[in-house]
Amino acid sequence: MKVLYAQSGGVTSVINASAYGILDEAQKAGLEVYVGIHGISGVLKENLLKINGKSIDGLKYTPSAAFGSCRRKLKSQEDINKLFEIFEKYEIEYFFYNGGNDSMDTAWKLYTEAKKRNTPLKVIGVPKTIDNDLPYTDHCPGYGSAAKYVAIAIMEATLDLRSMYVDSTRVFVMEIMGRHAGWLVAAAGLGWLNGIGADIILFPEVPFNKEKFLDKVDETIRKKGYCSIAVSEGIRYPDGFFVADMGYTDSFGNRQLGGVGFTIAGMIRSELSLKTHVAIPDYLQRSGRHIASRTDIEEAEGVGRQAVKLALDGISGVMVTINRISDNPYKIEYSTIELNKVADKTKYLPEEFHKDFEVTEKYFKYAKPLIEGELFPEFKNGLPNYTIFKEVDG
Amino acid sequence: MKVLYAQSGGVTSVINASAYGILDEAQKAGLEVYVGIHGISGVLKENLLKINGKSIDGLKYTPSAAFGSCRRKLKSQEDINKLFEIFEKYEIEYFFYNGGNDSMDTAWKLYTEAKKRNTPLKVIGVPKTIDNDLPYTDHCPGYGSAAKYVAIAIMEATLDLRSMYVDSTRVFVMEIMGRHAGWLVAAAGLGWLNGIGADIILFPEVPFNKEKFLDKVDETIRKKGYCSIAVSEGIRYPDGFFVADMGYTDSFGNRQLGGVGFTIAGMIRSELSLKTHVAIPDYLQRSGRHIASRTDIEEAEGVGRQAVKLALDGISGVMVTINRISDNPYKIEYSTIELNKVADKTKYLPEEFHKDFEVTEKYFKYAKPLIEGELFPEFKNGLPNYTIFKEVDG
Repeated sequence: MKVLYAQSGGVTSVINASAYGILDEAQKAGLEVYVGIHGISGVLKENLLKINGKSIDGLKYTPSAAFGSCRRKLKSQEDINKLFEIFEKYEIEYFFYNGGNDSMDTAWKLYTEAKKRNTPLKVIGVPKTIDNDLPYTDHCPGYGSAAKYVAIAIMEATLDLRSMYVDSTRVFVMEIMGRHAGWLVAAAGLGWLNGIGADIILFPEVPFNKEKFLDKVDETIRKKGYCSIAVSEGIRYPDGFFVADMGYTDSFGNRQLGGVGFTIAGMIRSELSLKTHVAIPDYLQRSGRHIASRTDIEEAEGVGRQAVKLALDGISGVMVTINRISDNPYKIEYSTIELNKVADKTKYLPEEFHKDFEVTEKYFKYAKPLIEGELFPEFKNGLPNYTIFKEVDG
Repeated sequence: MKVLYAQSGGVTSVINASAYGILDEAQKAGLEVYVGIHGISGVLKENLLKINGKSIDGLKYTPSAAFGSCRRKLKSQEDINKLFEIFEKYEIEYFFYNGGNDSMDTAWKLYTEAKKRNTPLKVIGVPKTIDNDLPYTDHCPGYGSAAKYVAIAIMEATLDLRSMYVDSTRVFVMEIMGRHAGWLVAAAGLGWLNGIGADIILFPEVPFNKEKFLDKVDETIRKKGYCSIAVSEGIRYPDGFFVADMGYTDSFGNRQLGGVGFTIAGMIRSELSLKTHVAIPDYLQRSGRHIASRTDIEEAEGVGRQAVKLALDGISGVMVTINRISDNPYKIEYSTIELNKVADKTKYLPEEFHKDFEVTEKYFKYAKPLIEGELFPEFKNGLPNYTIFKEVDG
């Protein structure tokens, strides 16, 4: 019996912990295990790596897709036929696809095709996204670590700002990923659990009101001398236009977004005459394994192991989900949802989790357990010693 | 006998370890210890905080200036007179100023004034800068931790990039602080000690050659499929113009610099038609205490303690320096240099430390011991539990 695992979509700092869970659990079950290099893109090119006999322990400590990811959607019947040709050639009985909502759509298409063809292929989706926007799961592996990164980054940067404000920079702006949902930018408020965090959070769910925003900056400066701001890359004006819209579309027809952090800082400079600094962590916030959440790492591994157990029980066509049993003590259990229910859906930050420019007590209660604990990577030469599979390079 | 300590200039993630060293050593010597809030700006306003009896252990684990910093230069005799008035009123015999080259200029002026007035005031400079550009010292406290941050950030982001390049982003650009000297951007190469780092480094010491640069990007992409780039904010064209020059001066008369990361990425998009991502860590790279270097922390504390010992021995008018005795095992000793020799000087990255777009073996040998070791802060609620003195807020 043979297993195929592949990684897909934007990566996280703990997706390889899921890989570790799946590959280890499958090998323990005596299965022959293959990995697709760069998701279905690699599978389509028969770029498969046999895992049995390889050392995989380092995966638990390595960020980003150790086996490469892709953004390829499954659109043509030709691609589907090609994939099934390869599944047959390698006698794959279990396919585990580790990704976000687009990837679950791919998994769902393969599942329905398998049923149509009446082949024994089982397909299980394994969730992963720093955006935390998959429905039917309390949260997504990858979110806790990205949230922890964002919370710590703005805590530390705000300490820097408050050092400097008397005769230098008065406003710090940090631009956070999450074009549609405000889950990740919300984490900029978590530092208040320990006394310092973002003074103002701009959520993509809340239409941007420039006047109200500048009033709030001014009020904060008057009160404490400085103001730190976390802004989602996806904030929009009430008419739906992105605040960072550059006014034109790129060669692929997408609206070109500039750095919204600089747009916001520019407003503050010109309207309030205050010196600003802007940080755009970009990839750093989703690859910061050196400060990942232990809870998140353990759950990422957990959903991986659970996926293998489900497949061995003959289950197919579902994504593993996380149900929260209690907040304190924090307790979860794994469950499942049909893949088609998750595909291409977005779960927004609930209204009860934010108010004006802040997060609420309910959000603190929700997010705190997800960022708890550390599990530092091994250090060598003063730096993390990450696991690197050469096969991923071109 | 009374002591005054103050922090000045752009902050680091370990400047408070120096504060801890000074305040602890001075208290052990039975001295009465004051801290100026926001450097000499606070001292001029008699904004002093008495430390004896206060808990200061958390300083060792807290980034940025816990007592506030300032960028105020000592220009008028009026300010100097005011400072001596306050020194007299508080019977200050030792003044420790913790900063970079501008701050050493301030310390030097106070030292010469003290001699002129024939007062017993002793002035000692305590070095601190992520820029590592102070002369007469092997390196500066603050550099090792910022270097470690930069090295890890680009390692992790490059792992992300190599996950995504097959059908998405091909080039990642990270903009690094250091307008004049390339010490910090050089650290983007350190990841190669563990197998992954920046493919291209753009140093401010090397005039920017657009054609040669784009050729190198193209060559790297052809070889491995992706390319990660670390660029100093201060790179210039051969004619001396900043690459990021926006073409105008701001209201203070300074040339306005845009994000050079975006400038570089724009060149790559338009000339090579490659998708790019840009990160600008900004304050994050100098406040990232959560991943500071243990060597750096210990030396930051060490230069603080040494400053007190020197003052107690009657020495004045010097800055503490670090001499390297050996690389392996790494061994240093503390020494001193006259303050006026350091004031307003810049130490550039030596030519033997970089070649074309890379750092050399000699740089690895120099930098490796400086980033060695970790000393994580205490975590509470999943986040660092930093020490916050309320007095710093306005």
